[in-house]
Amino acid sequence: MRCEVVAIGTELLLGQITDTNSSWIGEQLALAGIDSFFQTKVGDNLDRIVEAIELALSRSDAVICCGGLGPTQDDLTRQAIAAVMGVALVADEAMEEHIIGLFSGRGRSMPANNLRQAELPEGAAFIEQMPGTAPGLICPVARTGEDGSTRDLVIYAVPGVPWEMREMVAGTVLPDLQRRAGITAAIRSRTLRTWGESESRLAELLAGRIEELDRTGAATLAFLASGIEGLKVRITAKAPTAEEADALLADEEGRVRALLGPLVFGVDDDTMESVTLDLLRERGLTLAVAESLTGGMVGSRICDVPGASDVFVGGIVSYASRIKFDLLGVPEGPVVSTDAAVAMAHGVRRTLGADVGLAVTGVAGPEEQDGRPAGTVCLAMVVGAPGPGGGAGGGIGGGGPDVSPPPHVEAVEVRLPGGRRQIREFSVITLLGLLRRYLATGGETGGETDGGR
Amino acid sequence: MRCEVVAIGTELLLGQITDTNSSWIGEQLALAGIDSFFQTKVGDNLDRIVEAIELALSRSDAVICCGGLGPTQDDLTRQAIAAVMGVALVADEAMEEHIIGLFSGRGRSMPANNLRQAELPEGAAFIEQMPGTAPGLICPVARTGEDGSTRDLVIYAVPGVPWEMREMVAGTVLPDLQRRAGITAAIRSRTLRTWGESESRLAELLAGRIEELDRTGAATLAFLASGIEGLKVRITAKAPTAEEADALLADEEGRVRALLGPLVFGVDDDTMESVTLDLLRERGLTLAVAESLTGGMVGSRICDVPGASDVFVGGIVSYASRIKFDLLGVPEGPVVSTDAAVAMAHGVRRTLGADVGLAVTGVAGPEEQDGRPAGTVCLAMVVGAPGPGGGAGGGIGGGGPDVSPPPHVEAVEVRLPGGRRQIREFSVITLLGLLRRYLATGGETGGETDGGR
Repeated sequence: MRCEVVAIGTELLLGQITDTNSSWIGEQLALAGIDSFFQTKVGDNLDRIVEAIELALSRSDAVICCGGLGPTQDDLTRQAIAAVMGVALVADEAMEEHIIGLFSGRGRSMPANNLRQAELPEGAAFIEQMPGTAPGLICPVARTGEDGSTRDLVIYAVPGVPWEMREMVAGTVLPDLQRRAGITAAIRSRTLRTWGESESRLAELLAGRIEELDRTGAATLAFLASGIEGLKVRITAKAPTAEEADALLADEEGRVRALLGPLVFGVDDDTMESVTLDLLRERGLTLAVAESLTGGMVGSRICDVPGASDVFVGGIVSYASRIKFDLLGVPEGPVVSTDAAVAMAHGVRRTLGADVGLAVTGVAGPEEQDGRPAGTVCLAMVVGAPGPGGGAGGGIGGGGPDVSPPPHVEAVEVRLPGGRRQIREFSVITLLGLLRRYLATGGETGGETDGGR
Repeated sequence: MRCEVVAIGTELLLGQITDTNSSWIGEQLALAGIDSFFQTKVGDNLDRIVEAIELALSRSDAVICCGGLGPTQDDLTRQAIAAVMGVALVADEAMEEHIIGLFSGRGRSMPANNLRQAELPEGAAFIEQMPGTAPGLICPVARTGEDGSTRDLVIYAVPGVPWEMREMVAGTVLPDLQRRAGITAAIRSRTLRTWGESESRLAELLAGRIEELDRTGAATLAFLASGIEGLKVRITAKAPTAEEADALLADEEGRVRALLGPLVFGVDDDTMESVTLDLLRERGLTLAVAESLTGGMVGSRICDVPGASDVFVGGIVSYASRIKFDLLGVPEGPVVSTDAAVAMAHGVRRTLGADVGLAVTGVAGPEEQDGRPAGTVCLAMVVGAPGPGGGAGGGIGGGGPDVSPPPHVEAVEVRLPGGRRQIREFSVITLLGLLRRYLATGGETGGETDGGR
C-alpha cells in the first residue's frame, strides 16, 4: 500500500507558510506501516491540483490532499477531486445545517460562502471527525490498471489547519488506509524521552535488547536525536489486536525503562518542564529560579505549562552582576562559577520564599566572559523540605529562626555546544533535568518536614 | 521561466526533518520573478529521484535539487542527475585536492568517502560558492520539445544544510536563472516590519500609494501577516541596474515610512527586541522588567540579542501574587490591572536600579483569573532619565534623595487573542512595542539628566 501526500496552497510554494503537515503525515504513515514515496506541494490552481492528484494516483494507491478546503474562491480541493473522479459537486443538506448550526451556536453570522464547505463530489463521504468548520472527505476512485484490471484507489481531503488535519488523519484516514491495505495488525507506538546521555551511549545500553528484538520481532526500537529536546527512543509494537499491541508496548516500555533508568524523563508529549512541575507538585514543593545567561527562559518555559502557578512562585533574572551581588547575595567575585550558582539558588529561594531554588549562570557568547569561553555554564539547585519552616520560611525574606534540616545542594559546571540560542536552550533543559533526576530518584531533603500543606 | 524544487531525503518523507529549504527557495524564486508551480519531496532512492527530476523537467525549465550531496552511499543526487543527463560521473582532481585541503586545514583526517563529493556528471560545473564540504552543481540538459525544437534546461544541485544551500542559491542559482530567463533587470526587496495596526488599516494607509504604483510600476508593495511577529510590508523594486533598483527601493521605503509613521519598527531581520535595545542604548538608558504571565519571556527574548548586557540589567518574575506585593510593592488587591502593572514597573525599576521599568500582568488562561477572561493583559512602562540620580538611583534600592524629574509613566490594558502560548507571545511584543514607540517618537522624560555616564 502506497500513499502520497499533496499539500495544496500557493502560500506553501511562496514560502509564506512552511509545510509541516506533510512531515507529520509522513511520520504517521511510516508508523502505520504504509509506504509514502513522494510528497508534492502545489498552488491554488485547479489544473495543477488535478495534475498533482492524477500523478499521485498513477503511482500510489491513495492520496491525502491537505489544504484548500476553506470557504473562499481560492479553495479548490473539492472541485479538483470532483474533476479527478469525473463527477459533479453536490450540496449535502445535513452538512449545510451542521455548518449553519456551528456559526449560530457561536453567536456569529455565517458568510454565505461557508456553505461551499457542505459540497462534496458525488460518491464521496465526509470524514467523521470535524473539529473545525471544514469537513474532510473520503473519495473512492476506480482506475483501470495496465493489465486491464480495476484498481480501487482513494483520495482523502483534510484541512490545512494542523490540529484539524491531525484529528482527521489519526481518527479516520490512517485506520481506513490500514483497512484497505489489509493491515489487520494493530500498531502502537510510544516515545520515551531521555536526557543526559549521547546516542551512542543509549545504543550501547540497549544493544542487547535490540538484538533480542531483531530475533523475536516483538517490537522495534528507534532512536530520534532531537537536539535540545534530548534523544527520543520510539517503541513500536505490532499485534493482531489493539489489546495485544498495547500489552506488548507496555512490556517493552518496562524493559527499556529498566535498562535506561533515570535517563528516561517522560513519554510522548511530556516535556522536561511538565514532568519537573508534576514531581514538585506531588511532593508539595514550590520553586523559584535565578537566571543569568538564560535571561528568563527557564521561567518562561515553566509558565508554558498550564497550572504552573501551583508550583512556580517566580524568579529573579540577574543579568547584571551587581544584581547577583546585591539582591541574591552572591559574594563579589567571578560570576561564572558553581559557587556563584549555588549562592544564586540560595538567594532566590530565600528572597522569593520557595522550597526549591534553581540557578544558572554562564557565558552565552559570542564573546568569552571573565576568561571563560562561550558555552561554559554553571547550574545549581537547592532543595528544602516543603512547607513553612521546611522551605525558605514560607514567606519572602524568611521569618523567625530556621529550625528545618539543611537543604540538599547540588551544583555542576558544563560546557555546552552551539551558538548563543542553543547554549541558552541547552542550559534550560540541563538545569531542569538536574532537579527532575533528583526528585525522580527519590532524593530526600535530609529530614522531615516541620509542617504539612 | 519556470523552476521546480525537488527536496531529496528519506528523513524528509518520514517527518524526521521538516523541509524548510523548499519554502525558502520558493520565496526567493518569487522575489526573483521566476514561477514555481510544484515542489516535490522524494526519498533516497535512485529510481525515484530520477523520476522526480524527469517529471520536473517535463513541465519546467529548471530544477533545483536540494540535499543528497553528502559523502555516504545514501547520497544519490549526483548519480541521479548523471542518469537524467545520460552521462557518466567523473572525478574532478582540482575539487579532490580542495576537499583534501579543507580537512587537513582543520586538522581532521578525511574519510575516503568524501572524495565522492568531488565527482560530477560530465558536462556539469561546480557552483562557485562552497561554504561547507559539499560542492553544488550546475548541470545543463537538452530535451527535445513537442514541436521538435531543442529545449535548453538546467538542473542545479545544492546541499540540504540550510546555510550552505542559501549561499549557493543566492550567489549562483538565482542569478543564473535570471540570466537564462533573460531577466536583465535587477530586483531588490526590503521588508518593513510593523506592529500595532491590523492588515486592513495598513492597506487603508497605503491604498493611495499602491494605486499609484499600479500605474507607474516603480515598485510593488505586498503585505505578509506574520502572527506574533506583526505585519510585514515587503517593497520590491526592479530596474535595469542594481544601483537604480537600490535607489528606487530607498525612495519607496521613504514614502512608505512617511505613510506608516511609527508603525514601522524595523527592517528585514530586525526584531522588536533588537530595535528596542538599540534605542535604549542610544539614549544611555538601562532596562529592568517585571513579568507575571510571561514568566520570563520578555527577558529571555531580550537576552537573545547579542550585547543585551549593555542595556538589560535583569528582571523579576512575580508569578505568585505575594511576590508582586512583597518584593515589587504592588498594593494588595487585584493583580490584573493597569494600576498593578504600573506598580510592578516602578517596583522593578527601583529594586533593580534601572532607568526604565517595564511590567506585564494578565491572564494567560486557559482559566480566567479574578473574574478577568484569558487574554486580558495589562502593560506598563516607567521611563526615567538616564544615569545616576536621573534613573532609579543608579543602584539597587536607590540611594539618597531623588532630585530627578518624575519619570514618564504609561499603562494600557489589552485583550489578546489565541491560546496560552500566543497570549504570552503577543504580550511580549506589545510591551516592547509600547516602549519602542515612545523612544522612537522622541519621548522625553520630562527633564534633563542630572549626571552623565
